Amino acid sequence: MNKFEVTILGSGSALPTLKKRPTSQLVQYSNKYFLIDCGEGTQVQVRKAKVSFLKISHIFISHLHGDHYFGLIGLMSSMHLLGRVADLHVYGPKELNEIIHLQLRASYTQLRYNLVFHELVGKDSQKIYEDKNLEIHTIPLKHKILTNGFLIQEKPRPRKAKPEKLKFYEVPHYKIDGIKRGDDFETPSGEIIPNDTFTFPPEKERSYAFCSDTAYSDKIVPLIENSSLLYHEATFLEKENALAKKTYHSTAVQAGLIANKAKVKGLLIGHFSARYKEEDTTTFLSEARTEFENVEIAEEGKTYSVK
Amino acid sequence: MNKFEVTILGSGSALPTLKKRPTSQLVQYSNKYFLIDCGEGTQVQVRKAKVSFLKISHIFISHLHGDHYFGLIGLMSSMHLLGRVADLHVYGPKELNEIIHLQLRASYTQLRYNLVFHELVGKDSQKIYEDKNLEIHTIPLKHKILTNGFLIQEKPRPRKAKPEKLKFYEVPHYKIDGIKRGDDFETPSGEIIPNDTFTFPPEKERSYAFCSDTAYSDKIVPLIENSSLLYHEATFLEKENALAKKTYHSTAVQAGLIANKAKVKGLLIGHFSARYKEEDTTTFLSEARTEFENVEIAEEGKTYSVK
Repeated sequence: MNKFEVTILGSGSALPTLKKRPTSQLVQYSNKYFLIDCGEGTQVQVRKAKVSFLKISHIFISHLHGDHYFGLIGLMSSMHLLGRVADLHVYGPKELNEIIHLQLRASYTQLRYNLVFHELVGKDSQKIYEDKNLEIHTIPLKHKILTNGFLIQEKPRPRKAKPEKLKFYEVPHYKIDGIKRGDDFETPSGEIIPNDTFTFPPEKERSYAFCSDTAYSDKIVPLIENSSLLYHEATFLEKENALAKKTYHSTAVQAGLIANKAKVKGLLIGHFSARYKEEDTTTFLSEARTEFENVEIAEEGKTYSVK
Repeated sequence: MNKFEVTILGSGSALPTLKKRPTSQLVQYSNKYFLIDCGEGTQVQVRKAKVSFLKISHIFISHLHGDHYFGLIGLMSSMHLLGRVADLHVYGPKELNEIIHLQLRASYTQLRYNLVFHELVGKDSQKIYEDKNLEIHTIPLKHKILTNGFLIQEKPRPRKAKPEKLKFYEVPHYKIDGIKRGDDFETPSGEIIPNDTFTFPPEKERSYAFCSDTAYSDKIVPLIENSSLLYHEATFLEKENALAKKTYHSTAVQAGLIANKAKVKGLLIGHFSARYKEEDTTTFLSEARTEFENVEIAEEGKTYSVK
């Protein structure tokens, strides 16, 4: 099974502190690296995670609040200085492209690599990436400015053949692909042999859903239903419920509620407001657990398996 | 005597590493804080130095290579989030103003404080700041793009009066200011009493000169002559001399040579290329010392007195 992991590079909120970096996550699938958000200092966090900058091929920016993208231009500049030649794909609201190019022009920098910018819009979920194993879709979120979460999901996989059964029934080679897709088999004498005689069901496809920043909105539930792992922001505790609503953020309870409604397998929470102390972390956990059992804190530097 | 200190927040070069932050320095004079350059991660370094963001009133950006300013927008955003209301003065090439405003617009941020932008041009030294104790002038440098160093200097101070002598010669009160400025005194009988009868010479005015990034250029010597402390970049060792020239940077020997020619009292060097290792630091020192004795490494987190 391909490696599918999320490393938290930063999970703080808008104000960076000595202990908390702003949002950034590195998703590894097999030998591919995707970066989601890129707050100030992300390039140093990538170094700490011991991943070469040059391996990151796609960067997804959820929205243009600084704590989600101020580190992008620095990372891109370092990729340039390190001699990157491979294309870099950057996804975000269109102003991001202007911001990047204005800063490149100001230093007369002609990137050594090709920047491929993909504009993200709001409203509806878009498919923004596809390869042989994965699809990535946006998750439109409810925030003060245009904001998208991202769903990284494995494509449905073919059923797994039982070679000895294929041999026993003398299934011709050209029929095997169809059988892996679920076809039954008709013998030369006209007998129908059901597909599960020849195949095991495939491994269940895994998916990772990233939702930050957002007010509570159950519109996202159908998009993230049954995800293997959901990261959902939880900026506030329940007693700041009204503030969460006003600032278009969520509480820990609301993150738990979304996880519950979407029947995900696991929930990560982060983006706690800088007003809280280290010891409040357990309160975030226990408040989220009132709605959803399998929740963990998104800890900086820690890697979580998507399973 | 007023406190006059420089704290090195970052002294690395273009590529940030786990050990080296990009350029930023905090200059404290009495109760005023001036920030020179603001590479990515500077706001965290300011926190480490235990200085409130809100105390910084003036920020001087030498040039628009990212390692000298990518942390500015993050620091400015944090000042906004922390409720700053006092004016913030930012000095730099005009494109910096566009870059700041484009990023503010992208997040619909209306700063709570007034940003006063001062455009810096090249060619000649300009006086860009003055208060009762200090003047700040630009030091036009020789780099790939428009770049200014900064000279922060105390104003000449009045001579110090000897009260018992003023009394003895019955100097009228209205003449005392003139005497502090160096006037001689004419007695009612027409006798001229020389100024040094009444005064001690003032304390020598102190000054700090910041010169980064720059190719070797002795045009700056008259501007920084007799400075108390000079920070001069030293990106390369002597064996990379040709590379220094090509990239408009300096070697440690060249930094020493400038210090020598300008007859400064002390020299700090930094901005070492990421190609060098920790143990090369002593080579930077010894190479600079071939030209100038009193040289130190600009160490991150360390505070240097201007004396």
